[in-house]
Amino acid sequence: MQLPKSVIRVAESFESLPGIGPKTAQRLAYYLLRVPDNMLEKFANSVARLKLDTKRCSVCLGIGDADPCDICSGNNRNKNQICVVEQPMDLLAIEKVGFYKGVYHVLHGVIAPLEHIGPEEIFVNELFNRVNENTEEVILALNANMEGEATALYIKQQLEKKNGNQNLKITRLAQGMPLGGDVEYTDAVTLGRALEGRRGY
Amino acid sequence: MQLPKSVIRVAESFESLPGIGPKTAQRLAYYLLRVPDNMLEKFANSVARLKLDTKRCSVCLGIGDADPCDICSGNNRNKNQICVVEQPMDLLAIEKVGFYKGVYHVLHGVIAPLEHIGPEEIFVNELFNRVNENTEEVILALNANMEGEATALYIKQQLEKKNGNQNLKITRLAQGMPLGGDVEYTDAVTLGRALEGRRGY
Repeated sequence: MQLPKSVIRVAESFESLPGIGPKTAQRLAYYLLRVPDNMLEKFANSVARLKLDTKRCSVCLGIGDADPCDICSGNNRNKNQICVVEQPMDLLAIEKVGFYKGVYHVLHGVIAPLEHIGPEEIFVNELFNRVNENTEEVILALNANMEGEATALYIKQQLEKKNGNQNLKITRLAQGMPLGGDVEYTDAVTLGRALEGRRGY
Repeated sequence: MQLPKSVIRVAESFESLPGIGPKTAQRLAYYLLRVPDNMLEKFANSVARLKLDTKRCSVCLGIGDADPCDICSGNNRNKNQICVVEQPMDLLAIEKVGFYKGVYHVLHGVIAPLEHIGPEEIFVNELFNRVNENTEEVILALNANMEGEATALYIKQQLEKKNGNQNLKITRLAQGMPLGGDVEYTDAVTLGRALEGRRGY
């Protein structure tokens, strides 16, 4: 008994997604066989239209309904404070905090020499072109892993080299204990950074 | 910042699937934004065509490329041995063993009074109509849970009542220790059934 070809095709589509294995993919495909036709159609349509209906903002390179996106075109946003993130999902995570009132720059990746991703493959040059004499601050909000650190260091060095703006502040996210973290179980690097960055109480 | 509408739509589609939460759904939607256009199109098409290209076999009610399915139309299959399963996935699991040479009957559900699913909602009557004087065996390969047991009991009683065939064997899957199971950690019911069904060595 072979799986029906169209079930195989759907299962293969699901399997190409991150975190979905062959077994789950098959289960999802069979699940879809049982949903009402209009739901199935809605699913297919939403996927088909995904890229057609989204635009990459020409200013921050984020993904939005319009170009420029509603953050870049917003009046209540400080255009001179730029928060650099790796992915659109990171931008959303920071927006959810509700605290940040500047704008963003989405790199769509990080420098990862082992995966042959250099500065040309991500949108760093677009960042360097954006930063000018009016820019007050560039916040490097990259992931706290090796690639994120390397990319942050590269951006910092390039900005210092290329930019004539002496008042430009380059900052990065604080590192330390996460909420609910146990000192006993916190790794040495994190604990070291938490100590290093300790604040008055 | 709102999520782009088309991303929301795709995320909602994913979220409607079993085992996919809002966070994973969002991540998958953003992942799809980065895949090549032709892959995205393939995904949408495969979903759209899923139901159009599959047929429910009019004999066993399984899902296949053709009606009757290749098991029901196969020459090397014993049409007088019917294995009753709950879902098409169960059929595939048994086929994978490679041991069974009879045919199947897919109920597409089990009797579950708490969820208002009675015998009329699943394909039991189709089974009763299939079983005739030539049928040698009906194997009840349902899940070993309450609903599966109740459905098996119902089918057994109805078959005995309605069927004039005195030679019809009604069997069920053996219950006992799974491969690699520890006696110490096996629940009392399973262990009881394993003891009850013990075999000569």
